[in-house]
Amino acid sequence: MAEKVRETVDRIRRLEVQGARNVAIAAIKALEALAQETRAKTRENFVKELDEAKTVLFASRETEPLMRNAIKWIITRVEDCDERSVSALASLVSSSSKSFQKKLEASKELIAEIGAKRIRDGSVILTHCHSSTVTRLLSKAKEDGRNFEVICTETRPALQGRITAKELVALGIKTTMIVDSAARAFMNDVDLVIVGADALTSEGNVVNKIGTSAIAVLAYEARKPFYVVSELLKFDAATLCGDYEKIEERSPTEVWMEAPEKLIIRNPAFDVTRREYVHGVICEEGIIPPHSVNEVVQRKYPWIFL
Amino acid sequence: MAEKVRETVDRIRRLEVQGARNVAIAAIKALEALAQETRAKTRENFVKELDEAKTVLFASRETEPLMRNAIKWIITRVEDCDERSVSALASLVSSSSKSFQKKLEASKELIAEIGAKRIRDGSVILTHCHSSTVTRLLSKAKEDGRNFEVICTETRPALQGRITAKELVALGIKTTMIVDSAARAFMNDVDLVIVGADALTSEGNVVNKIGTSAIAVLAYEARKPFYVVSELLKFDAATLCGDYEKIEERSPTEVWMEAPEKLIIRNPAFDVTRREYVHGVICEEGIIPPHSVNEVVQRKYPWIFL
Amino acid sequence: MAEKVRETVDRIRRLEVQGARNVAIAAIKALEALAQETRAKTRENFVKELDEAKTVLFASRETEPLMRNAIKWIITRVEDCDERSVSALASLVSSSSKSFQKKLEASKELIAEIGAKRIRDGSVILTHCHSSTVTRLLSKAKEDGRNFEVICTETRPALQGRITAKELVALGIKTTMIVDSAARAFMNDVDLVIVGADALTSEGNVVNKIGTSAIAVLAYEARKPFYVVSELLKFDAATLCGDYEKIEERSPTEVWMEAPEKLIIRNPAFDVTRREYVHGVICEEGIIPPHSVNEVVQRKYPWIFL
Amino acid sequence: MAEKVRETVDRIRRLEVQGARNVAIAAIKALEALAQETRAKTRENFVKELDEAKTVLFASRETEPLMRNAIKWIITRVEDCDERSVSALASLVSSSSKSFQKKLEASKELIAEIGAKRIRDGSVILTHCHSSTVTRLLSKAKEDGRNFEVICTETRPALQGRITAKELVALGIKTTMIVDSAARAFMNDVDLVIVGADALTSEGNVVNKIGTSAIAVLAYEARKPFYVVSELLKFDAATLCGDYEKIEERSPTEVWMEAPEKLIIRNPAFDVTRREYVHGVICEEGIIPPHSVNEVVQRKYPWIFL
Amino acid sequence: MAEKVRETVDRIRRLEVQGARNVAIAAIKALEALAQETRAKTRENFVKELDEAKTVLFASRETEPLMRNAIKWIITRVEDCDERSVSALASLVSSSSKSFQKKLEASKELIAEIGAKRIRDGSVILTHCHSSTVTRLLSKAKEDGRNFEVICTETRPALQGRITAKELVALGIKTTMIVDSAARAFMNDVDLVIVGADALTSEGNVVNKIGTSAIAVLAYEARKPFYVVSELLKFDAATLCGDYEKIEERSPTEVWMEAPEKLIIRNPAFDVTRREYVHGVICEEGIIPPHSVNEVVQRKYPWIFL
Amino acid sequence: MAEKVRETVDRIRRLEVQGARNVAIAAIKALEALAQETRAKTRENFVKELDEAKTVLFASRETEPLMRNAIKWIITRVEDCDERSVSALASLVSSSSKSFQKKLEASKELIAEIGAKRIRDGSVILTHCHSSTVTRLLSKAKEDGRNFEVICTETRPALQGRITAKELVALGIKTTMIVDSAARAFMNDVDLVIVGADALTSEGNVVNKIGTSAIAVLAYEARKPFYVVSELLKFDAATLCGDYEKIEERSPTEVWMEAPEKLIIRNPAFDVTRREYVHGVICEEGIIPPHSVNEVVQRKYPWIFL
Repeated sequence: MAEKVRETVDRIRRLEVQGARNVAIAAIKALEALAQETRAKTRENFVKELDEAKTVLFASRETEPLMRNAIKWIITRVEDCDERSVSALASLVSSSSKSFQKKLEASKELIAEIGAKRIRDGSVILTHCHSSTVTRLLSKAKEDGRNFEVICTETRPALQGRITAKELVALGIKTTMIVDSAARAFMNDVDLVIVGADALTSEGNVVNKIGTSAIAVLAYEARKPFYVVSELLKFDAATLCGDYEKIEERSPTEVWMEAPEKLIIRNPAFDVTRREYVHGVICEEGIIPPHSVNEVVQRKYPWIFL
Repeated sequence: MAEKVRETVDRIRRLEVQGARNVAIAAIKALEALAQETRAKTRENFVKELDEAKTVLFASRETEPLMRNAIKWIITRVEDCDERSVSALASLVSSSSKSFQKKLEASKELIAEIGAKRIRDGSVILTHCHSSTVTRLLSKAKEDGRNFEVICTETRPALQGRITAKELVALGIKTTMIVDSAARAFMNDVDLVIVGADALTSEGNVVNKIGTSAIAVLAYEARKPFYVVSELLKFDAATLCGDYEKIEERSPTEVWMEAPEKLIIRNPAFDVTRREYVHGVICEEGIIPPHSVNEVVQRKYPWIFL
Repeated sequence: MAEKVRETVDRIRRLEVQGARNVAIAAIKALEALAQETRAKTRENFVKELDEAKTVLFASRETEPLMRNAIKWIITRVEDCDERSVSALASLVSSSSKSFQKKLEASKELIAEIGAKRIRDGSVILTHCHSSTVTRLLSKAKEDGRNFEVICTETRPALQGRITAKELVALGIKTTMIVDSAARAFMNDVDLVIVGADALTSEGNVVNKIGTSAIAVLAYEARKPFYVVSELLKFDAATLCGDYEKIEERSPTEVWMEAPEKLIIRNPAFDVTRREYVHGVICEEGIIPPHSVNEVVQRKYPWIFL
Repeated sequence: MAEKVRETVDRIRRLEVQGARNVAIAAIKALEALAQETRAKTRENFVKELDEAKTVLFASRETEPLMRNAIKWIITRVEDCDERSVSALASLVSSSSKSFQKKLEASKELIAEIGAKRIRDGSVILTHCHSSTVTRLLSKAKEDGRNFEVICTETRPALQGRITAKELVALGIKTTMIVDSAARAFMNDVDLVIVGADALTSEGNVVNKIGTSAIAVLAYEARKPFYVVSELLKFDAATLCGDYEKIEERSPTEVWMEAPEKLIIRNPAFDVTRREYVHGVICEEGIIPPHSVNEVVQRKYPWIFL
Repeated sequence: MAEKVRETVDRIRRLEVQGARNVAIAAIKALEALAQETRAKTRENFVKELDEAKTVLFASRETEPLMRNAIKWIITRVEDCDERSVSALASLVSSSSKSFQKKLEASKELIAEIGAKRIRDGSVILTHCHSSTVTRLLSKAKEDGRNFEVICTETRPALQGRITAKELVALGIKTTMIVDSAARAFMNDVDLVIVGADALTSEGNVVNKIGTSAIAVLAYEARKPFYVVSELLKFDAATLCGDYEKIEERSPTEVWMEAPEKLIIRNPAFDVTRREYVHGVICEEGIIPPHSVNEVVQRKYPWIFL
Repeated sequence: MAEKVRETVDRIRRLEVQGARNVAIAAIKALEALAQETRAKTRENFVKELDEAKTVLFASRETEPLMRNAIKWIITRVEDCDERSVSALASLVSSSSKSFQKKLEASKELIAEIGAKRIRDGSVILTHCHSSTVTRLLSKAKEDGRNFEVICTETRPALQGRITAKELVALGIKTTMIVDSAARAFMNDVDLVIVGADALTSEGNVVNKIGTSAIAVLAYEARKPFYVVSELLKFDAATLCGDYEKIEERSPTEVWMEAPEKLIIRNPAFDVTRREYVHGVICEEGIIPPHSVNEVVQRKYPWIFL
């Protein structure tokens, strides 16, 4: 296996690469490196190398459907191609990796464009954690001349809300930060909740940063639209086959560095929001009910189910 | 006015005294000091001094019904007494202050005894923020031989959950801490939620640390009993007369010390939990529905309404 | 029976007297007239005359607990009085009638005072139909310097919302009118719903103008406080004994004057709002949960249950 | 201790006496027997005998607040009486036992009268299990000329629904029986649900035959009024003090006589219905919200809390 | 641009043409006229003329997806056709217009046939506003021999309920009219709610006459099926792309002609019913969950998304 | 018509064949027999014979979409085949029957495999009635090494829960049986509810054994996932066209053999669970939201809609 693959797996494992998008890109760049450096002489050997890389990359982190789909995209294209020359296949890996990244970038832009229309002048948006697609969407809404403000939670324990806050303030958007547990106290002032996603399941549920599902319940109680912004490429086909979406648990020191001995600290990174709390999924196909995510993916990305 | 009163008012204002119970005791001890040091020669002048002290103490902090009721208790007793000698009235202030503190202590013990019975072997209790009555209740349950564990939130921004965590660990109770926004992720593992209260309103609602109402909604959604532990002496008679319970807003620096300029930070200290989310109020009268708090106080502490 | 009683019964029956308060006052003024004109020579005969008057007045209209309680108040006082002289009893009728009217007036003022405190600067209040107590409450809030606006439904079929609208505009309050079915479309802009009541039942439910219960459901869905403003003297003790609150049905022509033949038009005047939709009852005792109305009336007006 | 007490305790334990009312009456008749046969020479000894009897009777069955209250009534009266002669106290036991039974009988009649008014011509009533008070209420409604029909569940495992069915058919009431799990399928046809109770708790919850709480949830979902018919004498004061209402678990053979070995069969006799599912409690004080049961008992039967 | 187009745009703007169906037909007839009168010599010029007409027609009214889809259908067919002769393209416009109208008519009949099966003997149907498809459905149910009755709201402010009422009475269907705010009072007597739609959104929500969403909430609360009757051709593809469905606001004088000065009157014509309140959409594909409307339209009318 | 067909119809009618799967297999085996014994000389006559058989088989039982789909599968294949020789068509009937049975068997295995993944170590599963697919799923989970326990209802009146109990005990799975009405009392201990289905409707609702919908409501209230296990081949295409799913009503003697005369006993065999109560449908396509069942069937089995 290429050095690059092993190194990438390590970096993903040690959380040096973070965020669904970054992890996915790192993984397929590793495949590109593998393809360029391959010493395989036959198609069979080359495919075998790819498969081994896939296995270790898949195992590097639990909740990463985007990375898995990115790898599937490349390998599927290689398998579907009749070419027997290794160098031709290697360039196919490279071009597929590029096309996937473009697809991802295009999806993000499309989502920003579509979602920005949901923001009206004077709106108050609540968001949780940090998502580059959400930031892009908000920035697009501002470019479109909409005047609005954002309330963002600090998002304990890792305080990614501060990244969001900084980005929004830099964009000149009026931004208010609150502690996570104040979400309900401010929900009445909110017009719209918009959050990102780490994974979409076949049942239409959404996996995202811990705390998301509570905000969804509170938005529902307060009758505020709760939108999830996500590329359909985050769909996890394994859930269709019955697998539970895995929920990573992170280090207790993220929560309290000098915690007293014997104190247990639980620190799951994500939670699951049930489809009935989600007003709509804003994706590259438009705004759709979470209930139909599986069918839309079946229509648009059939290779995900292979 | 006695020096002590002025000083107490200052300490309460500067948040040097904190917690409903501590604030109430400081206030009535100031009245004791005033009574001991009084130079009033007539009953009329003495009562006037007390009234002035009451006015400044009432104004020292917004959400403190227990302190107000403590002062009312003493002044009502003075007013009801026919005695004209100032020294006799001064000792009445002192004895009333003592009797109030005893009443408070007795209520806490009674509540701990009653509430401890709700904890069964193997129970998982979730609590939020810090309440000495909740800690006493849990410690009583342990004394009674019950084996259980506690999940406590860290309670941002001031992290009072750490005080709770330390106390419980010291008591030998198995304790888990989570960030506030993880409450829903753990709700399914919980058997019982128990929280304290800062004020009870005439409509049966409960004022407590920010985040309490969100936990109540989540407990309700998950069909877990949500108990409020509170002395009825925290009843706020002003709410019966239409006043909103005031919600103190604390310094933004509690949330983020070096926040970027222009970023607004909102930091309310409490929120209101509606009565339908409250399974029962565990008080010195037993476990009652929040809907009947007003009537029970009318029966038990009629002087609160004077 | 005095001429005045018969005439009053007729006027109530023909809907010439309308509104719980007006009907009640007309009824007890008729008792005053009866007392003044009585030819009874003995206490027994006088009491018998009163009882006959009570019977016909009770029968004059279906949904009028306030009128029934007004009559009960007078007759109970006569029965409780040992006096045997008819003229003394007649003046007792007169003074009791006056005291009831004062009680009613005082309750209205107290309610206005208490309720006005719930209106904050910038609040948007939604109301339905017309209630003089609600108007008084809003006018009190304005006198208190609060700046707010009101959305009122037109209240089909009799369009009493227009009376409310005129009164509020005359008071200089910013007022918006909508059709009844637009209530949900505006609920998100509303901070508070305040309506009057025609009757309170022992189960804590509220009888008021048709359409009230729908607005209550919508307020509940949107998490907006829904307050009922009512004198406790509108409590209907018969409901405690199992009687259903009667719901008057009015003329179809109120709905459509030249309706096509064969078209059935149903036109009930009131509906019942269940206690869980009511945030609080603002009454002369303060703001209480509807669940405890029965107990508060037991404590305050025990003679209502005789 | 009198032979009769020991024997009664045994019969209660062996389930030979069943039903809250029968158990209560058996217990106080045992006290009567004890009083008649007593060899105590002093008041002190007599009271001690009563107390010993109370202890064993209380321990005979878990979910029997009515029996406990019946015994409390008698012993409280003895304790409150200054009389020192044992024979006088013995007759007091006897007269108190009689007065309790009369009180119970009067409550049942009053409840039947009040509740019967809730049944209208053409109503369809759903009931669960067997309650002599419910049967009396339905029979009263029929005597009052109301024409209605009843759907009764069979009430597995002991099939008490068949007792109800036989009684109602004998009364000439149109009766339909369904299996327990068909309750939801028929809920839309139902106008009113009426069930009995085994215990009322301080929080306003209701303990009744297993399956009651499920029917309450289904009635709530279908917006059908769910009434609980119960003497307030079934109030369990221990719940006010934090005790959980005990839920008796009965023999597995009631469910399946020849069950395969190793199969576990769980057979709890009762469940708890939360107050929000209960439209009203029809009791000897009238129809009240379950939320105020504790306060009404405090007012009406203060001796229950001694 | 043809005179006819300009004139049609004016008539639509001035509300002289009303109702989704009438507006759509007027618009495509204008295109037919344009095609017949065209002086274009080339395909390019003809297509340009069509596009200009499309632009002004699209702009003539806000909430008209059916009209937009009708125009799209014609223009798409012209664009897909390789023919270069203007006269051939002109007849294609004409035949496409006819085929669209036939499709619409066929959909209406199919919907009536499918929906009529949901009406059983003895059913009570509640409807709101006026929809010719709903009337056709009810008339079909009657033709099928079903015996049922209808409750219709008057539908303020424009009182379209009176049109419905007249049509139904003319059809010999037992019809009852109520004011809009009485809907909840009658909901318990209702078996089924059936309403029309002005637009279907990509999230599965339904846009219809103001008041529809409140009735949906009330039907949901009362557990009564709420059906929306709509041609899928009313699907608004713009919502998929993030546009909010526009809600037209009409003249205040519709609500109150001689309103007092300073009184604000708000008068939105439509509201949005969330998908969870909708039991099923009865469309030309059968009865489907609103959640899958987008996918069904994708399958059946892919040209709508072009 | 072949003797076998007539006999099969009789056996289905007399409930000698039971269970969706058994009925479907019996029906298509009857078609096989018909094909083997046919005396038809022409394709036309043979198809006519098949159609007659279809008609009587369809009419043999009300709630049997699987049987109808099985027959449709065979007849569709015959109709789609150009072959004119009767013997060739007869073997096509035979091979299609076999392929349908294989499809069914394969679906069951796939469902078991997928669903088994949802069961975790330590899970408590609640099930209702008997479904061979549910038993297979549980047995697969055990084969996969998962350690869990099952609570099963007895399922009155026919006590199919005992079949489930026996099968599970035989498989060595820890099994607890309860009466149907105890479901809510145990719901808090449950991690997952899994039930089978008799029919799936176009609106996404599920038809299954009486009592299923009540358990779904209770699971929803307790926030426990409620899964329906079903082959998509149980989809009832007639519901798409507006037909109500028919609900068979069985003999009253199943409920009470020696019921008193005049007592009506109602005994519907199935009820309908609304889609919002169903967490997911576990089918041969994976785990999908019930809302998309129609679209998935459209994609996978388009012949069902012919």
